[in-house]
Amino acid sequence: MDSHKFAAQGFDALFKPRSIAVIGASSDPTKTGGRPVFLLQKHGYDGAIYPVNPKADAIQGLPAFPSIDDLPATPDLILVAVPGAAALEVLEKASSRGVGAAIVLSAGFAESGPDGRQLQRAVTALAARTGMRILGPNCLGAVSVRERAIGTFSVALEKAMPLEGGVSIVSQSGNIGSAAMRMLGDCGAGIARFVATGNEADIQAGDAIAWLAGDPDTKVILCCLETCRDASRLTAALALARQAKKPVVALKIGTSEAGQKAALSHTGGLAGSDRVFDAVFARHGAVRVRSLEELVQVGAAIEALGTRSFGGDATPSAAVIAASGGFGVMMADAAAAHGVAINPLTAQTQARINKILPLASAVNPVDATAQMSANPDVLEALVDAALGDSANNAVCIMLALGMEVPRLRSVFMDGLANAARRHPDKVLVACVAGPKDAIRQLSGLGIACFPTIDAAMAGMAALARLEKTRAGGGNAVAEAIERQPLGARSWRNEATAKAALGAAGLPFAAEIIATNTEEAVLAVEKIGGPVALKILSPDIQHKSDIGGVELDISGARDVAAAFDRIMASAATHAPRAEIDGVLISPMAGRGTELILGTTTDPIFGPVVMVGLGGVFAEIFQDTALRMAPVTEEEAGEMLRELKAFPLLNGARGRAPADIGAVTAAIAALSRFAARHAADVAEIDINPLIARPEGQGAIALDALIIPRHGDPQENAG
Amino acid sequence: MDSHKFAAQGFDALFKPRSIAVIGASSDPTKTGGRPVFLLQKHGYDGAIYPVNPKADAIQGLPAFPSIDDLPATPDLILVAVPGAAALEVLEKASSRGVGAAIVLSAGFAESGPDGRQLQRAVTALAARTGMRILGPNCLGAVSVRERAIGTFSVALEKAMPLEGGVSIVSQSGNIGSAAMRMLGDCGAGIARFVATGNEADIQAGDAIAWLAGDPDTKVILCCLETCRDASRLTAALALARQAKKPVVALKIGTSEAGQKAALSHTGGLAGSDRVFDAVFARHGAVRVRSLEELVQVGAAIEALGTRSFGGDATPSAAVIAASGGFGVMMADAAAAHGVAINPLTAQTQARINKILPLASAVNPVDATAQMSANPDVLEALVDAALGDSANNAVCIMLALGMEVPRLRSVFMDGLANAARRHPDKVLVACVAGPKDAIRQLSGLGIACFPTIDAAMAGMAALARLEKTRAGGGNAVAEAIERQPLGARSWRNEATAKAALGAAGLPFAAEIIATNTEEAVLAVEKIGGPVALKILSPDIQHKSDIGGVELDISGARDVAAAFDRIMASAATHAPRAEIDGVLISPMAGRGTELILGTTTDPIFGPVVMVGLGGVFAEIFQDTALRMAPVTEEEAGEMLRELKAFPLLNGARGRAPADIGAVTAAIAALSRFAARHAADVAEIDINPLIARPEGQGAIALDALIIPRHGDPQENAG
Repeated sequence: MDSHKFAAQGFDALFKPRSIAVIGASSDPTKTGGRPVFLLQKHGYDGAIYPVNPKADAIQGLPAFPSIDDLPATPDLILVAVPGAAALEVLEKASSRGVGAAIVLSAGFAESGPDGRQLQRAVTALAARTGMRILGPNCLGAVSVRERAIGTFSVALEKAMPLEGGVSIVSQSGNIGSAAMRMLGDCGAGIARFVATGNEADIQAGDAIAWLAGDPDTKVILCCLETCRDASRLTAALALARQAKKPVVALKIGTSEAGQKAALSHTGGLAGSDRVFDAVFARHGAVRVRSLEELVQVGAAIEALGTRSFGGDATPSAAVIAASGGFGVMMADAAAAHGVAINPLTAQTQARINKILPLASAVNPVDATAQMSANPDVLEALVDAALGDSANNAVCIMLALGMEVPRLRSVFMDGLANAARRHPDKVLVACVAGPKDAIRQLSGLGIACFPTIDAAMAGMAALARLEKTRAGGGNAVAEAIERQPLGARSWRNEATAKAALGAAGLPFAAEIIATNTEEAVLAVEKIGGPVALKILSPDIQHKSDIGGVELDISGARDVAAAFDRIMASAATHAPRAEIDGVLISPMAGRGTELILGTTTDPIFGPVVMVGLGGVFAEIFQDTALRMAPVTEEEAGEMLRELKAFPLLNGARGRAPADIGAVTAAIAALSRFAARHAADVAEIDINPLIARPEGQGAIALDALIIPRHGDPQENAG
Repeated sequence: MDSHKFAAQGFDALFKPRSIAVIGASSDPTKTGGRPVFLLQKHGYDGAIYPVNPKADAIQGLPAFPSIDDLPATPDLILVAVPGAAALEVLEKASSRGVGAAIVLSAGFAESGPDGRQLQRAVTALAARTGMRILGPNCLGAVSVRERAIGTFSVALEKAMPLEGGVSIVSQSGNIGSAAMRMLGDCGAGIARFVATGNEADIQAGDAIAWLAGDPDTKVILCCLETCRDASRLTAALALARQAKKPVVALKIGTSEAGQKAALSHTGGLAGSDRVFDAVFARHGAVRVRSLEELVQVGAAIEALGTRSFGGDATPSAAVIAASGGFGVMMADAAAAHGVAINPLTAQTQARINKILPLASAVNPVDATAQMSANPDVLEALVDAALGDSANNAVCIMLALGMEVPRLRSVFMDGLANAARRHPDKVLVACVAGPKDAIRQLSGLGIACFPTIDAAMAGMAALARLEKTRAGGGNAVAEAIERQPLGARSWRNEATAKAALGAAGLPFAAEIIATNTEEAVLAVEKIGGPVALKILSPDIQHKSDIGGVELDISGARDVAAAFDRIMASAATHAPRAEIDGVLISPMAGRGTELILGTTTDPIFGPVVMVGLGGVFAEIFQDTALRMAPVTEEEAGEMLRELKAFPLLNGARGRAPADIGAVTAAIAALSRFAARHAADVAEIDINPLIARPEGQGAIALDALIIPRHGDPQENAG
């Protein structure tokens, strides 16, 4: 079965049902089983509504039915508001009757304890067995705005339906999704679909994204995740969205230890590394945002801007305009904080602006001064000049109180409309906090609105990032890697690990294993020059701690003595350890110490990491991380992401390091980790010495930790 | 004259004028000279309003006068809307007539070029000569809400006056201040006074803060600065506010290089280091915020909370409550990001909550689940339980859509009111984005409202920081330092610098200056052990570059050779340098390298800095900075602020460093810099070796850079 097709299967019934039955329907519109009936009628759903309640003849003015079996026709969709075990019975009946999809609104499943978990497993099995798609349980349901298909009890719809538009929301948390839906309205955006996946017994966020990728009403997909229960369904969905050129904006919560703990306790999901989500989103062309507000603002901006773009530029840049020097300063500060360039306008444009406003400062920020509120009609020419200037790929204007003073609002609005119309391809952003109808009007003109300066700059950065990652096809995904088993001998000791990794392309020195003094002396003669001696044993991990390491030893006599000291020390401090010998290696030349490593994320699998050695990675948490495998190009991006990158690149009078050799090593390590993901839990290369340019790199130590704790995977 | 009295002098006329004349009054209420007349009448100012305009008999229904001399009585305050040179004439006339204060609204002064700057100097001189206080020029003016005294043409007042309340605003930028005034209303806060100081020819932001410190209507002072033209006026004002127990919340803009450049170009102020402002605010008990939104939110929260407090705790902590696990996760994430602790509730409270809501997760975050919207009346007991719990010093509740659904709003509001009333001392914070009247109502109940989770956590952190800095009297300001001249010989070379700094308490090794080979050999014998040799010359700064340094030399023969090499090298590479000899020092033992330094901020004067040596300070910008002098306690805080502090404190198996010796050195250096501020521009101690605990610290190099560029100061 094509997994993409499977993921999206059943969603037509969920989002475009021709009939909806509400199981456990209530006459009280504030109850879980009452609100959907109330909302469907209030907002004018034009399909059939079947309240099901064995104790009532009518519910909220509609004829009620005792059970699904009694319905006059098979509904496309059922909403289940009856608790736990009863819900399972309902689902059985519904699937027998051929219902397309079910939304289980009720709680009391995996989130509530062992009994609930068992019940939820039954729901999952039922969906798999019958093919009926199930949303939830313990979820806020789904909404299609155009179809007025309301499968939710969200209070967000009590007052009004959202405006119809192109933004769709996929959220595991119903309340967050529902807040996003309301906030999008305040940002001037309209909604296509809303789906809250709750406990995800069957339908996962990824499935919903996969379907929305093919939904013509959806222009942009916002998703809010606390966990991911199936990595491949999520990544396949992101790939579909990218193919369909649908931007995906992702908010992943549980970034802190406390937040992740809270997320696990209420989702029962796995504790994947938060940083790995960054890597996953980046690789698959989704842009990650850091707050619910940013999610909504960026989503609304994408809808408002339509085809306007930064031209695929790596760095967004903006001409910023304010009617006050102070706001100009704040805009420059925020631009710097978010990596938005503020390039000086061209001389012609500056001259043009100074002709319009003689007192204005026209460089960038453009300070229009109080003249703008005295002569509001100059705004049009000013914005037109900035939009027509080539020095920046966007224009950002601070409207402050401009939209709240009726006299100014109409003049500004006309001016902005005309200027925007004359420059249909360029990004125009307004900082404007209200009123809401003005924001809606501005959005309709193709202007992205953000409530604060900081939000505007963060938003532009996110939009440009999204554009770039999609324009370039995202980071090149390395060639598909065929999984291969890795023999247990590979992780036996340092030498076997080095042999396996060396064969995969990691750079190690030629080393010799000595099992007696004579071999040690011969080895040193062969190597020629000072050497390091290290005990080799599958049972000794911290070699230095037991006196198992001797460095910078020269000459036969000293080498022999060092060999004997190591053996004696091992016999004393690790008497039961199996000893494979002593590994003798040439001392490494000078260079910059790096650490390379791989780990296995419980959700997304093998991950590769690089950092500078010593205290950098530890104290400053200065590491870069990607899904494995990576290409050499991506490995280069990882290095450039490090704050300490200047140290590799010739800072403080150092010779620039051989970066090509380092990126080759990272890529090789990442391929190795991907290939042997079934057997390998973790690899540490510490240190890798990056020598000066042209002299390569060399790894001095290597450790492979197998997936002992995962017999199922090991068996594979 | 008492400078504090002077600073506040004339402000009664500015804020509580019994009569106001508008010079250059216009019949057009959209013009700078027309809007104040319009606003004063519209909003019911009950003093006399005198429009002055030689070309009109009446202005907006009021009798107009040809000039100040023709006014029937001397006004307390004049608003000047006539341009440049004419404004100066007006000010002359006004001061002759005994006007108390003038607000120069017109532009065309220092911001507009050399002529304007000269004109502005004349305004400054006039104020100094006559004692008439002048606000501006090029400013948005002043407003007292209770008195309806409107000395502004701000469009913010066109629709309505702000609510009366206890928040006062001091802003150099009129537009920013005016936006803050409007935004405070949205946050449920009322305004006492607003003043925009513009070009600050006479009245500076500090003067306004000084007066507001004594103003009974002002409960909290918000200030927005782009620059500071007189450090002592600002710091004295902050001290007055602290004495008066008036919280000061400060937004300093121009944090980025681009922002600072923009700020300088339009204020003409000095480029003080942005980080020094941090140090100044921290020392003087003001809390610095990072955005206009945070300024306004924290100000409104202070007004709402009244006497509720965190109990002076160093770390704010909060029980967080949401009706959704997802929002709980977001709250935990944001709390972690802003340093707010989320301690588990006590067992009794957890039991109490589970009795109220059996399905709730009661640890912290408290997840009330969808039960909260189904049974909104449980909110009161829930919040009451959390407020009564001792594990955290605040409660933060996410209201999401709760205030937007009328059915829920009234129940929630009553519940919150009752719970808040029963716990009158504890901080209660709500995350609620609207509607505005609900926010006003909540604020009236003593609940601090923030529009987002992130804002709530950032706000709590700022409030706790403010409370702590004021509770402890802030950082202890070191004893007053008497300024002393420093002889030019002190900065001649490394040895003279070390002698001066050593006498001030900095730790140096006993070193010997050798001027010939024999002296060098004798010196090494006296020192006993390996030595370092360094060229001594007032003309050679980068000693290594010219071969002027030899390290780890032992024995008479090697020392003699090294001495000769250094002298020969100096003769070759710096033939014109005056050579004072060679400095011979014992090699330092092991330890952690630090760099200590002082610089002179152009606004605030001597500043002391510490960072870890090597790449830490440079690549990771990991330094701590304070106004000099600091106490040893403050020096300890500086060290603990460093990200690399764990390296001094025993991380990675290192011996803990002698932190007491390091803090003593920092304090001594800071006193030296303060005492000799008139002569010294900069001091570098690089490195200071922090030895293991109990073994002290030792400085290996010292450089004093005099204030060459500042002959005026040098002469003092």
